[in-house]
Amino acid sequence: MTTPLTAPPAGPASERVRLHRHPDRAAYDRATVDAILDAAPIAHLGVVQGGEPRVLPTSFVRIDDVVYVHGARQNALLTAAVGQRVCLTVTCLDGLVLARSAFNHSMNYRSVVVLGVAVEVRATAQKAAVLDRLVDRMVPGRPPLLRPTRPGELRATRVLGLPLLEASAKVRTGPPVDPAADRSFPVWAGEVPLHQVVGRPLADPGAPALAGAPRRIFAGLTVPTPG
Amino acid sequence: MTTPLTAPPAGPASERVRLHRHPDRAAYDRATVDAILDAAPIAHLGVVQGGEPRVLPTSFVRIDDVVYVHGARQNALLTAAVGQRVCLTVTCLDGLVLARSAFNHSMNYRSVVVLGVAVEVRATAQKAAVLDRLVDRMVPGRPPLLRPTRPGELRATRVLGLPLLEASAKVRTGPPVDPAADRSFPVWAGEVPLHQVVGRPLADPGAPALAGAPRRIFAGLTVPTPG
Repeated sequence: MTTPLTAPPAGPASERVRLHRHPDRAAYDRATVDAILDAAPIAHLGVVQGGEPRVLPTSFVRIDDVVYVHGARQNALLTAAVGQRVCLTVTCLDGLVLARSAFNHSMNYRSVVVLGVAVEVRATAQKAAVLDRLVDRMVPGRPPLLRPTRPGELRATRVLGLPLLEASAKVRTGPPVDPAADRSFPVWAGEVPLHQVVGRPLADPGAPALAGAPRRIFAGLTVPTPG
Repeated sequence: MTTPLTAPPAGPASERVRLHRHPDRAAYDRATVDAILDAAPIAHLGVVQGGEPRVLPTSFVRIDDVVYVHGARQNALLTAAVGQRVCLTVTCLDGLVLARSAFNHSMNYRSVVVLGVAVEVRATAQKAAVLDRLVDRMVPGRPPLLRPTRPGELRATRVLGLPLLEASAKVRTGPPVDPAADRSFPVWAGEVPLHQVVGRPLADPGAPALAGAPRRIFAGLTVPTPG
């Protein structure tokens, strides 16, 4: 008996997350899903409230097999989400895809959809750990430098966890896909890449500036030297 | 009788779109809403499907008082959205806000939430016009240069319109807001700006390269000269 060196491509965990449009762009393996989640600064969280959909942008962090979001305890959307099925979607836009016809225009992107039941994190120590990881993801190494979190701040904050049980990724890369007959049509066609870049940090004018502006944020974005 | 030179700040069109958290960051006037919609390359569309929320990233375009999205006719989410209440959310992330405590960390952003009933656009000419405007927003002036859209392409495409009747904007700018007692805490605090920039266009390798790569995309983003 030998162990295969590479695992077969993972299938979807449920039919709910199976992609039907452009299945060639789908991925269900955790490595792909995690890489996209860990690269994206924000997510869009969808919750059903009074039978209607609501979608709000939110910071988030993945810790192992759970994606966490947080907000004020009184936040109506997070309150409505506790114990309910939610949808957390993350999108990194990588470029425009300019084809020879309007119909074949597209975008290059990496996106992840996570479906599942949002569970409230109530244990104080776990809440504190999640909030530190949220900051640590924004600026690696920052949490131990901060004024420690107070019990009242933890009580004022709601933290929800969404297990990574049903997730799918969708990725488009590369040039436009025009039918052969269109390829000689006389218009420029190709990709226009988009990138997120970091500007010079601006020290808080409300206090004497200190050294120690971050050098890197998120998954390796370089921060220029303060001006 | 004189006409006031400035209108009073607009209130929300409905209680549904009134912001309760940080009402100081809210705006309901169409100028603010339109400026954010017109600047953002993509939206996240929330739809209730089988009682559960689904959120998908999508390109979109505002034409006057309506926001339009499109997709393949068979797209399950767009099919489910026809005649239903949906939520279209747009977010431009402008930076990280690094405070002295984890609790006061934030992000700078401009976001818009549009609520309403999605209406399918069935008239062929109107569909064609919307699809051209979608491309024109990506690359101003491009639609007349393209191979014209065919009737079969229009039939294969579903276009939904969402009237801008219930919309709210939320905007955060500026440095962290730490309580006075935290301001002397010895850690760097301030803003780390984030920008979307355009990379060098890559001509489609599948055909002879032509001149005419775009110079500007979206609301004025400059495109570097092709490498």
